Amino acid sequence: MTKKDVFVLQDILLSNAQAAAAIRRELESRGILAVNLLSSPGAGKTTLLEALTDRLKGRARMAVIEGDIETERDAERIRARGVPAWQITTGGACHLEAKMVGKVLPSVPTDIDFLFIENVGNLVCPAGYDLGERLRVVLLSSPEGDDKPKKYPKAFATANVLVLSKSDLRPHVSFDVEKARAEALSLNPKLEVFVVSSVTGEGLDDLVAFLFRVRGEIAARA
Amino acid sequence: MTKKDVFVLQDILLSNAQAAAAIRRELESRGILAVNLLSSPGAGKTTLLEALTDRLKGRARMAVIEGDIETERDAERIRARGVPAWQITTGGACHLEAKMVGKVLPSVPTDIDFLFIENVGNLVCPAGYDLGERLRVVLLSSPEGDDKPKKYPKAFATANVLVLSKSDLRPHVSFDVEKARAEALSLNPKLEVFVVSSVTGEGLDDLVAFLFRVRGEIAARA
Repeated sequence: MTKKDVFVLQDILLSNAQAAAAIRRELESRGILAVNLLSSPGAGKTTLLEALTDRLKGRARMAVIEGDIETERDAERIRARGVPAWQITTGGACHLEAKMVGKVLPSVPTDIDFLFIENVGNLVCPAGYDLGERLRVVLLSSPEGDDKPKKYPKAFATANVLVLSKSDLRPHVSFDVEKARAEALSLNPKLEVFVVSSVTGEGLDDLVAFLFRVRGEIAARA
Repeated sequence: MTKKDVFVLQDILLSNAQAAAAIRRELESRGILAVNLLSSPGAGKTTLLEALTDRLKGRARMAVIEGDIETERDAERIRARGVPAWQITTGGACHLEAKMVGKVLPSVPTDIDFLFIENVGNLVCPAGYDLGERLRVVLLSSPEGDDKPKKYPKAFATANVLVLSKSDLRPHVSFDVEKARAEALSLNPKLEVFVVSSVTGEGLDDLVAFLFRVRGEIAARA
């Protein structure tokens, strides 16, 4: 297979599923692990990406696509750490779609190991849109409450990974980790669950090791 | 004006705007203040309603309509405090619509003072749907971060009231009240802003006094 040195995803008439499949093929053929981050607003997606940036520095190359309704704020936070980042502003739309990602992809370097896509902060609508990711990561922060999986089931049912974020705030809120984990697993027994604090660093090593393992599987097939 | 003793909103073919207008007319003709609560998942809408239930007990009659994608959990929490509550489960839809409220309304007692409608936890989509409320209250909790108003502008631009919730967690998170307030007011200079903790009670008296004042204005015109 010959690989051009830019991503080529020109057919904007593709359906979301077709566009997502094309993105996944293109990324995986290059050994890139694409991760779609999904959560409520303020559950800590960007802060987790900042922490991952620090942990991956010198060990892997990464890029970030940020989705927001308005503002470049999240992309600026990532760029401030020396990582290339592109902001998609949806102008009102409540989720990213694969075609939005496809339009940005030709700008993204092809020699990266990880492509993180931070979705619009919304625990509902993004769950319906495949972006071509290999891993869908849903974050649930401890201040949000342990009752959320069954109230917002699709995000948890369609994810590969659950990050129980902001674990450092648990002493100050009512959040039962085992209850949240069990409820999420009842919706999706295959979920990989990590209890993480981007502030204290809890759980980050395990999450990074997992990301490297999945990336290694993709690279081995590429 | 004669008032039947049940709400009558039968025409399910009305547009959302028409249905909302009919609901508003019907409620306000009875002197009822309708409040639409809108926020991210886990920003504290139900907990605020529980706190308001306690504060209004013996002073006013209230009812609650709960919106969720799945589960009766929130309605059960309200009923446990002796307040009538109806659960609308949207079965996947990311927001309430006026017609959903209109279908529940015939079950709601007509001799109440306050009707609280808790929307699906979503800071994006519910902002586009008038439910017939007189007051739209958006909650922003301190763990979510003070950068949210401009990232999710429609919710803040269309609300009447901003509740900066979970103020008790401020010592443990990075949240600048004045920055959040100023940014929200830049989107919507008419916002009434309350800094509230449903745990410590901070700000609840002011919020309740405001609700009684608006309810009094409606009752005076009914």
